[in-house]
Amino acid sequence: MLANTEKSMDKLVALCKNRGFVYPGSEIYGGLANAWDYGPLGVEFKNNIKKAWWQKFIQESPYNVGLDSAILMNPEVWVASGHVGGFSDPLMDCRDCKTRHRADKLIEDQAGIIADGWSFEKMTEFIKEKGIKCPNCGSTNFTDIRSFNLMFKTFQGVTEDAKSEIYLRPETAQGIFVNFANIARTTRKKIPFGVGQIGKSFRNEITPGNFIFRIREFEQMELEFFCKPGTDLEWFKYWKDFCENFLLSLGMNKENMRLRDHDKAELSFYSKATTDIEYLFPFGWGELWGIADRTDYDLTQHINHSGKTLDYFDQETNERYVPYVIEPSLGVERVALAFLVDAYDEEEIGEGDKRIVMHFHPALAPFKACVLPLSKKLNDSALKIYDELRKHFMVTYDDAGSIGKRYRRQDEIGTPFCITYDFDSENDGCVTIRDRDSMQQQRVPIDSVASFISEKLKF
Amino acid sequence: MLANTEKSMDKLVALCKNRGFVYPGSEIYGGLANAWDYGPLGVEFKNNIKKAWWQKFIQESPYNVGLDSAILMNPEVWVASGHVGGFSDPLMDCRDCKTRHRADKLIEDQAGIIADGWSFEKMTEFIKEKGIKCPNCGSTNFTDIRSFNLMFKTFQGVTEDAKSEIYLRPETAQGIFVNFANIARTTRKKIPFGVGQIGKSFRNEITPGNFIFRIREFEQMELEFFCKPGTDLEWFKYWKDFCENFLLSLGMNKENMRLRDHDKAELSFYSKATTDIEYLFPFGWGELWGIADRTDYDLTQHINHSGKTLDYFDQETNERYVPYVIEPSLGVERVALAFLVDAYDEEEIGEGDKRIVMHFHPALAPFKACVLPLSKKLNDSALKIYDELRKHFMVTYDDAGSIGKRYRRQDEIGTPFCITYDFDSENDGCVTIRDRDSMQQQRVPIDSVASFISEKLKF
Repeated sequence: MLANTEKSMDKLVALCKNRGFVYPGSEIYGGLANAWDYGPLGVEFKNNIKKAWWQKFIQESPYNVGLDSAILMNPEVWVASGHVGGFSDPLMDCRDCKTRHRADKLIEDQAGIIADGWSFEKMTEFIKEKGIKCPNCGSTNFTDIRSFNLMFKTFQGVTEDAKSEIYLRPETAQGIFVNFANIARTTRKKIPFGVGQIGKSFRNEITPGNFIFRIREFEQMELEFFCKPGTDLEWFKYWKDFCENFLLSLGMNKENMRLRDHDKAELSFYSKATTDIEYLFPFGWGELWGIADRTDYDLTQHINHSGKTLDYFDQETNERYVPYVIEPSLGVERVALAFLVDAYDEEEIGEGDKRIVMHFHPALAPFKACVLPLSKKLNDSALKIYDELRKHFMVTYDDAGSIGKRYRRQDEIGTPFCITYDFDSENDGCVTIRDRDSMQQQRVPIDSVASFISEKLKF
Repeated sequence: MLANTEKSMDKLVALCKNRGFVYPGSEIYGGLANAWDYGPLGVEFKNNIKKAWWQKFIQESPYNVGLDSAILMNPEVWVASGHVGGFSDPLMDCRDCKTRHRADKLIEDQAGIIADGWSFEKMTEFIKEKGIKCPNCGSTNFTDIRSFNLMFKTFQGVTEDAKSEIYLRPETAQGIFVNFANIARTTRKKIPFGVGQIGKSFRNEITPGNFIFRIREFEQMELEFFCKPGTDLEWFKYWKDFCENFLLSLGMNKENMRLRDHDKAELSFYSKATTDIEYLFPFGWGELWGIADRTDYDLTQHINHSGKTLDYFDQETNERYVPYVIEPSLGVERVALAFLVDAYDEEEIGEGDKRIVMHFHPALAPFKACVLPLSKKLNDSALKIYDELRKHFMVTYDDAGSIGKRYRRQDEIGTPFCITYDFDSENDGCVTIRDRDSMQQQRVPIDSVASFISEKLKF
C-alpha cells in the first residue's frame, strides 16, 4: 500500500473529477474560487459519511437526539456567540505588489510557528523582526494588520440597510445552543444528553485551498453534549474515544491519525480541554476533528444576551445549574477527503499489470456492487438481479468491455463487490462475487446476494 | 377522519412545537421572520421524506443519478438563467401608511384573480379600476409598481464591491444544468437520463407565511430529466404519473390532491407543458409539486452565455442535439407540511375518550417503534430490545405513566408500533405489538420484531 506521503493530490483530484466524485463548481463559467460540486459518486460518498455519523451519533446513541436548524438566524445570536466581535482573520496588504495576506499564515509558512491567537502587536513585531516577506514579490513593506470578519453577510427583506443585515451561519453549533430549552422541554431528556446536527456553514476564508480541505461553503457534523459541571472531563474523554473509534470502525488507517491536545497557550479562554484528531494528508498533518470542553461558556453567553433561562433543573439532586458542553465538531468534506486519501492505492497485480483502487469501507463506497453479465446475451437475467438489488442499496451495471476492464473501472471507484452472471448461472442459480480488496471470487446463490452484501455494510 | 378543511393550522403548529417537530427559528432572540428550526422529531421526519425521494428517484431508478452542487455559484449562472433579469416580485408602497405590498398578491386576495405573469401596466390599471385597497389602512394611494429581485446577495472575498457580489441560489436546478456535460461524460449515461439533487435554496420572499408553506430558506428536491426532443411530452406524462404515485405510495390521501395543468396564459414562454400537483391545505389549495416540460431553454441559455458545448451526440441515431428537459420540482418543507396535515386526526375512541393521532406512513414516521416495559421492574429486558432495534431504525423508549398514556404520546407523534414487554415475555419470549391506526395488538416473538417492522417500512 502506498504511504500517504507518496500519494499525489493531483492524481486524486483528477480521479475525483474524471469519475464523478468532485467537479469544480460553476466550471463552464470559469468556476468560483474554490467552490466544488459533488457528482453522482461524490454525493453518494458524502451521504454515506453523513448517514454513518447519524447512525452512530444519533440513531444508536442512548444519549443524543438530532436537530436541523436554519442557516439564517437572528443576528443577535452572533453577537452573543462572539462571532460579530471576534471571528476574524488578521489581514495585511503588501504595499508594493498590492496582494493581500493573512499575517498568521505568513508567520506559520515562513517561520514554522503557530501564530493563531497572537495579538496584532505581537504578529507585527515578529514580522518585522524576522523579516517575513511577501510571498508574491519578496517585499517587506506591509500595511498595518487589520481585522476581517469571516462571516458572509446578506440582507433579508426589501431594503439593504443595517437593520436587515443578517449572516450565513459560520457554524451549526449555535443553532443547538439557542434551541437548548426547547429541546430539553419537548424531548423530556435528562442530563447528560446531546444534540447533533448536520448542515451547511459558510466562512469567507481569505485563503481556501488544498482541494476540499478548506472551503468557504462546507458541511458540519456537530454534537453538543450537555453534562453536569464536574463530570465534563470524563465525558470529554468518552467522546474523544468515541470519535476515534468511529473513524477506525470505518476503516481509517491508524497510522495516518494522531491525537493532539491543545496546550494552555492554544486553548480558547473558555475551554478546559481541546483535542484535535489530525490526519496525515499528502500535504501534511491537518486538523480533522476538534473535540472541545467548552464549559458553560455558550449557554451563559446566550443567557446573558437574551435574558432567557437556559439552565437545567436536576430532579435527582434538586440542583439548578448551567450545563457544561463537550463539542466534537467535524467537517463533512474534510473527513471525506481523509477517507479518499486513505482509500487510494496503486497496486501491481501480477505480470506488469497495475490497478488504481479505492479501498473504501463498503458502508462508504458509492456503489455497493456492480452487476456484470459475462456476455451481453445474458443481459436479461443480469438486469433482473440489478433491479432486485437496487431496492436494497446503490448498485451499478456494466456490460461494456472485457471483464478485466470492468473490474478495473469498479476498483477505481471503490465498488467492493462485482457480481458476475455467467452461462453457469442459468443452471446453478448462482453468481460469482469478486472481492475488490482480495480479488478472490466465490460462488453465491442469487437469492442470498442481497443479504451477503448487507452483512458487509455493517461497521 | 377529519376533513382537511376541518383541521386547524393553529393546533398543528402547536403540536409541531410542543412535540419537537418544528420550533420558531432563533426563538430566544424573538425569532427571525418566518425562519423555522426542525427539532428532534422534525429532522427525522424531513430526513425520511428526503430518503424516500432519493430511493425512488435515484437509487431505484434505472435512469437517474444524483448530484450535490454548491449553493454559491458564479454569478454568470444567474445571468444566463434569467434570474438576474427577471426573478422578481412587483412591489408597491402605500403612500399613507407606508406598508409595502406585492401587487399581484393584493389582486389575488381582493379580486380572486391570478395576476402572476401580468405586466406592471396591466396590474396598475386593474388596481385603479377595481379600487384595490391597502389591506393595512384601506387607502388606494399607492406608489408605482417596481421590480424587486428575490435573490439573496452576498459578497465573497475581502471587499464589498460589485465584483465580489454573488447570490445564494434561488433554485437547485441550475447546478444540474451547468454540470450536464461533466455528468454525461463521467457517468457515460445515454439519453434519456436524469440528474436529481436535494439541497437548500433561498428566496427573499416579501410575504412568506402559512407556517412552513412559503419560507425564505428552504430545501428542494429537483430532477432534471434529459430526453430527445419529440419524446418530451411522453416523458412529461411519465414523470407526472411517477410523482403522483410517489405521494400515493407514501399514503397521501387522493381526495386531498389534484392535478392542475397550466393554460397557455400561465405557461412560461419556454415551457411546452406544466402541471402542478396541488394539495388541499387547511388554508386552501396550494402548489405542491411542479412538473414542467422546459424544452431546451436552460441548456441553450448556458450554451449561448458560456460559449461551451452542452449538446449531446446520440450514437444510436448519429444525431447531435440539445436535449429537452422535464423538471419535477418539489419543496421538502412544503411536502412535509402536506404530509403533516394529511396525517393529523382527532379521534373518539370509546366512552368519551379522545386521541390526537398522526397517521404517518411508517416510512415517514420519526420513530418506527416505541419500546414500553409494562412495569419499571422489566426495564432491563425491555432496554435490551430497545438497544437491538436501534441498530435497524429510529426507536424510542417510554417507561413513564400508564400504558394508555404512553400510547397517547406515541399516537400524537405518529409512532406506528408500540412494543410492550410484559411479565409473560420473560417466559414466552414474545412481546405485544400494538398498531397505531387499528389499535389492534398481536403477540410477536422478540427475535422477529425487527423484521416485522422492517417489512412495514416498505412503500
